[in-house]
Amino acid sequence: MNTRSPTGCPAWAQLLAHAEGRRSVHLRDLLASRKLAAEAPGVRYDFSRQRVDAMTLRLLANLADERGFAEWREALLSGKPINSTEKRAAWHTALRAGESSPREVRDTLARMKALVSNIRSEKKFRRIVNLGTGGSDLGPRLLAEALGDGALEVRFAANADPRDLERALEGADPQTTLFVVVSKTFTTPETMSNAAAAKKWGGKVFYAVTSNVEAAKQFGAGETLPMWDWVGGRFSVWSAVGFAAACAMGFDAFQEFLSGAHEIDTHFAQAPLERNIPVLMALIGVWNGNFLGAATHAVLPYSNALRLLPAYLQQLEMESNGKRVDREGRPLDYPTCPVVWGMEGTVSQHSFHQLLHQGTQIVPADFIDLSLEKVLSANALAQADALAFGTDDPGLPPYKQYPGNRPSSMLLLEGLNARNLGRLIALYEHKVFTQGVIWNINSFDQWGVELGKALAGEILSRR
Amino acid sequence: MNTRSPTGCPAWAQLLAHAEGRRSVHLRDLLASRKLAAEAPGVRYDFSRQRVDAMTLRLLANLADERGFAEWREALLSGKPINSTEKRAAWHTALRAGESSPREVRDTLARMKALVSNIRSEKKFRRIVNLGTGGSDLGPRLLAEALGDGALEVRFAANADPRDLERALEGADPQTTLFVVVSKTFTTPETMSNAAAAKKWGGKVFYAVTSNVEAAKQFGAGETLPMWDWVGGRFSVWSAVGFAAACAMGFDAFQEFLSGAHEIDTHFAQAPLERNIPVLMALIGVWNGNFLGAATHAVLPYSNALRLLPAYLQQLEMESNGKRVDREGRPLDYPTCPVVWGMEGTVSQHSFHQLLHQGTQIVPADFIDLSLEKVLSANALAQADALAFGTDDPGLPPYKQYPGNRPSSMLLLEGLNARNLGRLIALYEHKVFTQGVIWNINSFDQWGVELGKALAGEILSRR
Repeated sequence: MNTRSPTGCPAWAQLLAHAEGRRSVHLRDLLASRKLAAEAPGVRYDFSRQRVDAMTLRLLANLADERGFAEWREALLSGKPINSTEKRAAWHTALRAGESSPREVRDTLARMKALVSNIRSEKKFRRIVNLGTGGSDLGPRLLAEALGDGALEVRFAANADPRDLERALEGADPQTTLFVVVSKTFTTPETMSNAAAAKKWGGKVFYAVTSNVEAAKQFGAGETLPMWDWVGGRFSVWSAVGFAAACAMGFDAFQEFLSGAHEIDTHFAQAPLERNIPVLMALIGVWNGNFLGAATHAVLPYSNALRLLPAYLQQLEMESNGKRVDREGRPLDYPTCPVVWGMEGTVSQHSFHQLLHQGTQIVPADFIDLSLEKVLSANALAQADALAFGTDDPGLPPYKQYPGNRPSSMLLLEGLNARNLGRLIALYEHKVFTQGVIWNINSFDQWGVELGKALAGEILSRR
Repeated sequence: MNTRSPTGCPAWAQLLAHAEGRRSVHLRDLLASRKLAAEAPGVRYDFSRQRVDAMTLRLLANLADERGFAEWREALLSGKPINSTEKRAAWHTALRAGESSPREVRDTLARMKALVSNIRSEKKFRRIVNLGTGGSDLGPRLLAEALGDGALEVRFAANADPRDLERALEGADPQTTLFVVVSKTFTTPETMSNAAAAKKWGGKVFYAVTSNVEAAKQFGAGETLPMWDWVGGRFSVWSAVGFAAACAMGFDAFQEFLSGAHEIDTHFAQAPLERNIPVLMALIGVWNGNFLGAATHAVLPYSNALRLLPAYLQQLEMESNGKRVDREGRPLDYPTCPVVWGMEGTVSQHSFHQLLHQGTQIVPADFIDLSLEKVLSANALAQADALAFGTDDPGLPPYKQYPGNRPSSMLLLEGLNARNLGRLIALYEHKVFTQGVIWNINSFDQWGVELGKALAGEILSRR
């Protein structure tokens, strides 16, 4: 596989020169005359407000080619062990491939379906409490909050701070509460201490989602659903890790969620680079970060239901691509992952948009518009336009002027539903993978979290 | 008042040279031999893990002096109209000065006390729903979530997305629900559309917090509490804007909250710069942003109750200091406010700490430790140490290596209570003000949000 440094690719030098040459071009002068967009099933990606032109896009696509993108994509989608430091695949796409999924995946989905249907019809449980952290929390939490239909009260506790579990248990009765303990190793300290506290509280029924079946049985788990080595935590919402979410939204909706992602997988596999949405998202991110100097990336879903999406994407992007050595172990001399942050619009407008419009650093943004309400779509569009155009009236006092030329994209979908959320998350997953290929890093390990864990253990044992 | 550009101050050039000279110094070599800390009532600020030495601190203090900091601070604290573009004071400190507060403040607090006590003792209302956005939402929401004692169910709706209000009204009964409509002008679109929807839902009792008493009366507000021109939205949680929070936590706790802030005001007014916590926080932020190149700043409260603090501080810092022209209207050639972001620890460790430890950009962080649980304090300390020290073992493979030398501070308080939360927020307020002085910007206007508002209005009227 290609391991040439991106900065050693001919396209990189061409992009540097190209960026230099485009410095004086303002979005104001481009926007009126063009529409840059790509389509995937149910999604339109409008990147007219990015500081790119046809040449930029061609050079970025060349960079992907020179980095051997097609071969890497094939390796991802066919389950090759591309997570080289752990000698594992990153085969999350196999979790949502329908009849083409591996047997163990289909069997697990069938078991989930039976369990979820029982739980939702029997009404034995009034409360489901998910105990997990990181990838075992953020995904199911996002789904349950966005798509829960109210049939069950589904809550989450992730923090070692006991208050988190206390809040999740407010008003609950041990007799009618089901705990779902989610931990690949069944040793995650936060999760295990919350599981122990749940038992102490009187918890009777525990399900486990884990690859350590032995430990789960010893703990007393009534049902155990699998986690697999070939799925990373932050890519695991499609697996049994999504169990609590499936309880909240119903299994049919969970299937829709998988189907939406699978549609995007097909698009990602087949669409030519210049019309491939996750590839475009990735390339434009590389352009903004490596050639225009952006240090952060804002995600602004104009939907209260998606208010947890920025937190979800923080893990997905930053844990995957917050890396400083390449696949050969060489320290990098170019930036990798930006800081990803954001908030639900319109709320964000009354908080930090001042800095987006008039701060000294440029923050590229994704506006996510589900076409829920005219007022939401209008606000998303207005913010994107204000960022791009700015003001051009020298008569205004300086503090009322907006420089504009600040890049953003619009992700347009029709409605808040499971299929669309599946599409959206899959887009970002493939964006992250594609950027990892460009940057020549392993997006699928997370060695950076080990030292802190070890030190915390030492400190606790000393006390 | 001093309007000299910071980059024109002698200390600025000295700091540039100093930064250059310190490049090869690693925190690993400093930390063992020193303890850098300052104390204020109830708060210890440990900045041993910042990449500063005695000379750095002296030069930064010189910069503050050369920018006329003492005079600006005096102007702030005495209510001078330092918000020059709007010709207003920024006198939030007068909201928490006890007997020294202006008459109208004391009268309002007395009315709040009577109303809150009634509401909490009469039990006529079972649900309080705060309708406001930005500063009329984030502050009371943070307080209510952190310190609500469960006597009343207090909820918040801020988004133009109707789902936000729907969620706040789940399980509520119009007969026992009190709406608090918070908007200085009583024209904020999100707030007014939510207030109208609340009426349509059957809402019977509305209180208003506003300076537009006329409009509130026309709307049918039963009680009206004032907002004042000399308090900015993002500094207003100490005023009647905190009404819903006071209902949630009780008025005594709200008074404690004010007292904690007042203690910090006194500390800020009197402590010498080198022991003045908010000044040190500000100067170290300037050092990290303007001399070490950090583009963002992470806030990591190790407390589930403070999980909304990063969102609160995003508005406080970024709306205040996300500015690109100085007080004389000159475009700036130095960075102002970083992107402020964060999440509750320990949850954050399983999300984005990978990037903090092994990403390509340096993210200065504030670890906030309330000494709630050994496991939380140990984790905060372990993360800070891992960031500072890194690893020094060439035998490890590159992907297991941590460069370290990544700066962070610890804010240490004892316990989760109203006084401590008042202290904490006041520290950040004065940090923000001090940075505004250094950068020679007006931290108290927010003209950057106007263009988007106007465009949204145009788009909506066209549709």
